[in-house]
Amino acid sequence: MNNELGLIHCYTGDGKGKTTASIGLAIRALGHHFKVGFIQFLKGVSYYGELFFLYKLYPDLLIFHFGKDCPKSSLIRQGFDKCDLSCKFCFIDFKNPTEEDLKHVKLAWEKSKEISNLVDILILDEINLVLKYNMLPMNEFLDFIKEKPKNLEVILTGRDAPKEVIEISDYVSEVKMIKHPFNKGIFGRRGVEY
Amino acid sequence: MNNELGLIHCYTGDGKGKTTASIGLAIRALGHHFKVGFIQFLKGVSYYGELFFLYKLYPDLLIFHFGKDCPKSSLIRQGFDKCDLSCKFCFIDFKNPTEEDLKHVKLAWEKSKEISNLVDILILDEINLVLKYNMLPMNEFLDFIKEKPKNLEVILTGRDAPKEVIEISDYVSEVKMIKHPFNKGIFGRRGVEY
Repeated sequence: MNNELGLIHCYTGDGKGKTTASIGLAIRALGHHFKVGFIQFLKGVSYYGELFFLYKLYPDLLIFHFGKDCPKSSLIRQGFDKCDLSCKFCFIDFKNPTEEDLKHVKLAWEKSKEISNLVDILILDEINLVLKYNMLPMNEFLDFIKEKPKNLEVILTGRDAPKEVIEISDYVSEVKMIKHPFNKGIFGRRGVEY
Repeated sequence: MNNELGLIHCYTGDGKGKTTASIGLAIRALGHHFKVGFIQFLKGVSYYGELFFLYKLYPDLLIFHFGKDCPKSSLIRQGFDKCDLSCKFCFIDFKNPTEEDLKHVKLAWEKSKEISNLVDILILDEINLVLKYNMLPMNEFLDFIKEKPKNLEVILTGRDAPKEVIEISDYVSEVKMIKHPFNKGIFGRRGVEY
């Protein structure tokens, strides 16, 4: 990558647009022929349109996700079913994560370190929440940031970024929810929310 | 598009991530085989990586941009030159837009209306600024929103969204700049800022 130094970006806040902004950055970098890694914490096989799209971009974009697989994923993806968040299958109780949840975080973190030498930009999606709830020790994360390849640009997303994350970040954008059509009963729509 | 109703999204605020979030939404929708239109106001031929990437997605993604062409675009795009915002060529004086600036807005608006029947999601990039500075009459914009195809989802981006835009939007996310590495002299880096 031509950039002289790799900086740290953080997208946090309760608004819609954090992960989508990181995907926009991935697309921008790919347009300049950089290599991008996208690690999704807390989500397994799912029905997000951007994932199906991004899979096509391998090997310029390495993409991995670690979490509970949605059991209705393929039906939802193809529009035969809908995600309205009512099944709660993908719910994580952050205050009491299960062994399985913690195992997924561990695997995601191993993969993050593994690919950090292979890419120019590394997106760690939802890691802010992982750190906030101590699913990954903060020290381990900060050591990684300190020792990362000098040119590697790192993008951190997720609401409630801990203050340590804010401190080590060069860019911090807070996406605030000003308005959301919850009151119209709108939670999940294919192609917009997922 | 399978969604029952087309809603209005607004990404505003002074933080990094508004246009990139809208591109993330485009990628999400394309993953579900929806058609997307992306109209860029206030920018001509430029060196943004995401544009070079998005061009490849035609005809699922229709993309047009209207503004002054950057005279160094191809050199910057290929890494032989750098954009550090010092040439000021692309600068627009919003309080005194030139005839050329206004002509570009008019063409962008005509194209927006033209393709609104061809796509499921229409992204009007930087239109908030255009409306704030009356480069497009607010009435004309509001009439378009009122009469738009029922299922068309519209995404509006740009800082300083006028209150009329906030009012007619169903989703509003404000991207706030908490931190930016200006003090490190970092303005434009290929693959990250453009």
